[in-house]
Amino acid sequence: MIFSLTVLGVSSGLPTSKRFPTAHVLNVHGHLFLIDCGEGTQIQLRRYKVKFSRINNIFISHLHGDHFFGIFGLLSSFSMLGRKNDLHIYAPKELEKILLSETSPIDIQHFNYKIVFHSHKHELGQIYEDKKLTVEAFPLQHRIEAWGFVFREKQKQPNIIKEKIAQHNLSIVEIVKLKQGGDVLTADNQLLKHEDYTIPTAKPRSYAFCSDTVFLNRIIPIVKNVDLLYHEATFLHTEKKQAKLSQHTTAKEAGIIAQKADVKQLLIGHFSARYKSLDPLLQESQKEFPNTILAFGGLTIDVEQEKNK
Amino acid sequence: MIFSLTVLGVSSGLPTSKRFPTAHVLNVHGHLFLIDCGEGTQIQLRRYKVKFSRINNIFISHLHGDHFFGIFGLLSSFSMLGRKNDLHIYAPKELEKILLSETSPIDIQHFNYKIVFHSHKHELGQIYEDKKLTVEAFPLQHRIEAWGFVFREKQKQPNIIKEKIAQHNLSIVEIVKLKQGGDVLTADNQLLKHEDYTIPTAKPRSYAFCSDTVFLNRIIPIVKNVDLLYHEATFLHTEKKQAKLSQHTTAKEAGIIAQKADVKQLLIGHFSARYKSLDPLLQESQKEFPNTILAFGGLTIDVEQEKNK
Repeated sequence: MIFSLTVLGVSSGLPTSKRFPTAHVLNVHGHLFLIDCGEGTQIQLRRYKVKFSRINNIFISHLHGDHFFGIFGLLSSFSMLGRKNDLHIYAPKELEKILLSETSPIDIQHFNYKIVFHSHKHELGQIYEDKKLTVEAFPLQHRIEAWGFVFREKQKQPNIIKEKIAQHNLSIVEIVKLKQGGDVLTADNQLLKHEDYTIPTAKPRSYAFCSDTVFLNRIIPIVKNVDLLYHEATFLHTEKKQAKLSQHTTAKEAGIIAQKADVKQLLIGHFSARYKSLDPLLQESQKEFPNTILAFGGLTIDVEQEKNK
Repeated sequence: MIFSLTVLGVSSGLPTSKRFPTAHVLNVHGHLFLIDCGEGTQIQLRRYKVKFSRINNIFISHLHGDHFFGIFGLLSSFSMLGRKNDLHIYAPKELEKILLSETSPIDIQHFNYKIVFHSHKHELGQIYEDKKLTVEAFPLQHRIEAWGFVFREKQKQPNIIKEKIAQHNLSIVEIVKLKQGGDVLTADNQLLKHEDYTIPTAKPRSYAFCSDTVFLNRIIPIVKNVDLLYHEATFLHTEKKQAKLSQHTTAKEAGIIAQKADVKQLLIGHFSARYKSLDPLLQESQKEFPNTILAFGGLTIDVEQEKNK
């Protein structure tokens, strides 16, 4: 089953000719979760052949333009394309006000589909759940209200070893019990231990998104051990003053977060337009956390399944 | 002196991976006039190396998203880049309301520069003038209020033939009179005819922008004889029903307008996403008006100066 991230944009406030503003798409078993929606997101979705119709949930970290100005065009296009499915938007409260206002740039009242708004609460908490996935939001620290997200695949129940249970003529209730980690006493008084009759499924995968924010120690336990951590790295550490002033993170600091949180892989992005070459940012982060990679438009990272032992 | 048009976007409502929504930049002697500002305009401006700081006037034809959703990002970037110069926006009244509203996506009150709004009046009229150029707006017919624009270079005064006037010891007032087309009687009673002492300057150039609109006979006298006519051509004529319904023009009709208005060159754009190849649209228009070309992102057309006879 797919658990993959596609990067659509990697610029900070000022886009460049080659770097669109922030937008990511997480594909969880074929369901697409859009995270931020900078200007041009719909064009990037087209470019990288991401199906509009599979996006039912949009998560907006904060209301700086480079993270949400693409939403007007995208929501309009959804309507033009005849979308009928509800669209859920998880965002700071003000986005709902902008979109529902009489002076909104778009007239969502006349769209063919319904938009359901979910405003971020002012605390760490689960904001989304389905059969396969949960999403937690957690507050970041930026010039305005800003949120990070952790997407966690749910642990699938172990698979029954059919050949081994065949001899026991078990009821469905008993089989479910084994799958759920319980042991079963058969009619002939035999204790079937669940670990002998099931094969663990793969470990659930996880993706954390942290942008925009200052360096924040308190997010480390939240993103601990995730498979893939995206963290903004707007500046080199030589620009630490500028980073502090604008409440951004340096590449070095992003590396430190990844290292302390013991994540598997770090993806850095949200690069200042001042950097023509991004190699120095990569090197700086890799010094702290070697398994760092640079985000770029069109990059897709398949998070691989890992066997449970 | 430059009089050139750069096309930034050519899609209709739904952009494609290769076609951004509408935006044009007219360069008149180094001053840049942005016409419409679809999503991603600032990215296209960067891509085609158009200097942000030279844009002081933005003309918006109508408030469908594909013609103005790029303005939020562009105005924000102007502020981030430290712009100080006033920016003039010529647009339907509602744009001012959107941008000044408490729920506006951008906070223009805190920008470093001033935005001066000019709302389109409900009639044909001049909306801009400087030493080199005038701009007229004229109503189009679309699903909402929509406007076309004609940009006309002013006729420069003829040049004095210095060698010929040298012998007459003329005053500045007399020289100005000759340049303005008057004749001069010298102290020794000699009549100097202006046409003998001046060389006409080149013909003024003109560019007309017509998008979005149904086929409109009444615009023909307005765009008569322009050097370059941009006319939307959203559909092939086989889709005439769809064009009528959505109040757009077909490629054939755009060609007819150009032919009847006797323009020098026709540029068609605003193509429906349904057309992968645009050649049929070009051919259809060329049947009516051979000197038609297709708009594409990055196309620059230098309108050449033509000698007055």
